[in-house]
Amino acid sequence: MALIVQKFGGSSVADAERIFNVARIIGDTYDAGNSVVAVVSAQGDTTDDLIAKAQEINPGASKREMDVLLSTGEQISISLLAMALEKLGYPCKSLTGWQAGVLTDSTHGSSRVRRINKERLENELGKGNILIVAGFQGINRYDDITTLGRGGSDTSAVALAAALHADNCQIFTDVDGVYTADPRLVPNAHKLEEVSYDEMLELASLGAQVLHNRSVEMAQKYNVKLEVLSSLERKPGTQIKEVVQVEKMLIRGVARDNDVTRISIIGVADTPGVAFRIFSALAAAKINVDIILQSVGRDGTKDISFTISRSYKHEAMEIMENLKTALNAHEVAVDDNVSKVSIVGSGMQTNPGVASKMFEALADANINIHMISTSEIKISVLIDLDESQRAVVAIHEAFEV
Amino acid sequence: MALIVQKFGGSSVADAERIFNVARIIGDTYDAGNSVVAVVSAQGDTTDDLIAKAQEINPGASKREMDVLLSTGEQISISLLAMALEKLGYPCKSLTGWQAGVLTDSTHGSSRVRRINKERLENELGKGNILIVAGFQGINRYDDITTLGRGGSDTSAVALAAALHADNCQIFTDVDGVYTADPRLVPNAHKLEEVSYDEMLELASLGAQVLHNRSVEMAQKYNVKLEVLSSLERKPGTQIKEVVQVEKMLIRGVARDNDVTRISIIGVADTPGVAFRIFSALAAAKINVDIILQSVGRDGTKDISFTISRSYKHEAMEIMENLKTALNAHEVAVDDNVSKVSIVGSGMQTNPGVASKMFEALADANINIHMISTSEIKISVLIDLDESQRAVVAIHEAFEV
Repeated sequence: MALIVQKFGGSSVADAERIFNVARIIGDTYDAGNSVVAVVSAQGDTTDDLIAKAQEINPGASKREMDVLLSTGEQISISLLAMALEKLGYPCKSLTGWQAGVLTDSTHGSSRVRRINKERLENELGKGNILIVAGFQGINRYDDITTLGRGGSDTSAVALAAALHADNCQIFTDVDGVYTADPRLVPNAHKLEEVSYDEMLELASLGAQVLHNRSVEMAQKYNVKLEVLSSLERKPGTQIKEVVQVEKMLIRGVARDNDVTRISIIGVADTPGVAFRIFSALAAAKINVDIILQSVGRDGTKDISFTISRSYKHEAMEIMENLKTALNAHEVAVDDNVSKVSIVGSGMQTNPGVASKMFEALADANINIHMISTSEIKISVLIDLDESQRAVVAIHEAFEV
Repeated sequence: MALIVQKFGGSSVADAERIFNVARIIGDTYDAGNSVVAVVSAQGDTTDDLIAKAQEINPGASKREMDVLLSTGEQISISLLAMALEKLGYPCKSLTGWQAGVLTDSTHGSSRVRRINKERLENELGKGNILIVAGFQGINRYDDITTLGRGGSDTSAVALAAALHADNCQIFTDVDGVYTADPRLVPNAHKLEEVSYDEMLELASLGAQVLHNRSVEMAQKYNVKLEVLSSLERKPGTQIKEVVQVEKMLIRGVARDNDVTRISIIGVADTPGVAFRIFSALAAAKINVDIILQSVGRDGTKDISFTISRSYKHEAMEIMENLKTALNAHEVAVDDNVSKVSIVGSGMQTNPGVASKMFEALADANINIHMISTSEIKISVLIDLDESQRAVVAIHEAFEV
């Protein structure tokens, strides 16, 4: 008998019909002789509705009270899903974050799981109950309710799977797995049977919005076998695990990320400490920087460019404008008409020529590259936004993934 | 510095404007130098909406899961009210039932408070925080969420006031106190300054829907000073306490209860054990019986009539039909075209002639009495439904309350 953790997102439990669909998936898993812990998010738009209620009263509400409010969303889901399972005749119990023993730190709104107190979970599983646990939430050491922030339910599922030494952690979504490229952009993109944690991390951070990075990191750390699969179709999804077969495949997938803004500081003095001043100021404002590019110095000056998420654009520009005089910069330019296209694959580090093949594909498609960034298992290029779809198709074709 | 518990019902927190109104009442109480614990119900129709969601999925859902679902209603209210208080600049914290240490028995859906674990409450009050506690909910010994059933938030407020030895427990409603009669029926009904626990209990059970009986019983048991007052107007309400001044006033108020059905079992044998069989069968089905009337035996038979809430009508009739043959009854009749009108007052037991004065008022108004029931501080009559308003006015006038 295996122990399986199954996570269902908000769209999977959006209405009564979908809740019963989820209940049947859980029930079938239980009938096959497994113990099941299901983790659920808030229904469809519930969280947005609750945020709107709070906004109306106090846009500056404390994060503590926001967590009290938002955590009701998952509490509604777990009770409704438990009622559906009861209707189908299964023994089950819903558990809120605190009832499931999910202990977090005190960073309201984006807490991290510190520990799972397994006592009740193991006790209820021992009685043969299916457990329906509220994702996204926990409590801190003061017994205050906390929430885990974006992708929190994925993290809850992986944390529970790790704590309970589950045999598998299945993440059900509205896609049926991880693809070599976005099927909406590349018609002959195909589903990967398996992918490594590292590759998944790169793919996730590159905009293949299937799994949140924190949950993949945690799965890797505790060696939790993940599977991404569809809640609507009953077929195998993509396995995410430590070691995957590389075969002759050079790259695992092509990803696109349009949430990119490039900021360039042009004509700063080519002296030590310039980069430090720029990036320490951004770090102090908690702005994550992705690609960094520094031109070769010429005439005593150099240019520094970097990319950030669009949501930080105004804040970052304000910081740069303030630094402009101190750095004696010629100009600060911003461009959000850009997209980042990347290839990912553990195979590429032992296969020379991967980068040149990617650049060749782009050149053949007459697409200009603005910036290049590489890691051991990833090559990213910054290109014009309106050429990003063509770029993904061209690269996918070139590598025949 | 006094400690005041204030309870606000669902209509008092139905929207943002009303939530701020409540926040200002709480804030003013705090500013006057008091410690404040506010107890709130779910907003307006929230509970009904949640029940509808559950009905759609499983009309036979377990009470355990219903409690998980319904308790989110108050959790939403407490966070929104806390946000409003934050906006007004007050230090405050919302607490769910379990965070406030409300421990109950395990009767899901209608639990009774067993104990309040005061540790956190006293700790937070000691820090100068206003506490906003979710009414209607608690947890049982297994850490499962429970709800207290109808009028549960009143009970929560009184239980917290008792545990914390509060100086006052204020129940805010949409009326400004307890009246000598329903002001909508009797234009010159007037507000009572004070009323005893016993009188309040009789008034409440007679349809003066201000306070739930369980909360009044608990207030009496633990000697909690209650006050019923309006959340919309800032003026004194009605004090409910142990001993009240009786003055020359004979009766405290006139109440009407239209939620009445009379069932009559006609022509049963005038032998011992008949009443036992009827009322034990009703008790076994957990049907509360109010007035019981047995005719004097004649020709070896007698008639037994009793009143119950309309919601039990069909169930009770089924039981009576089943008993009919066994009891050899001539007929079982039901009438829900009736109303119960009552007068309540501690003074009446030492003042002869109260009953006759009531009957005189009804006779003068040409209103026929079907049944009469009396207690130490109450006289009730069952009359035709369409005469109930005239009856209340006539009695109110006769006693010049």
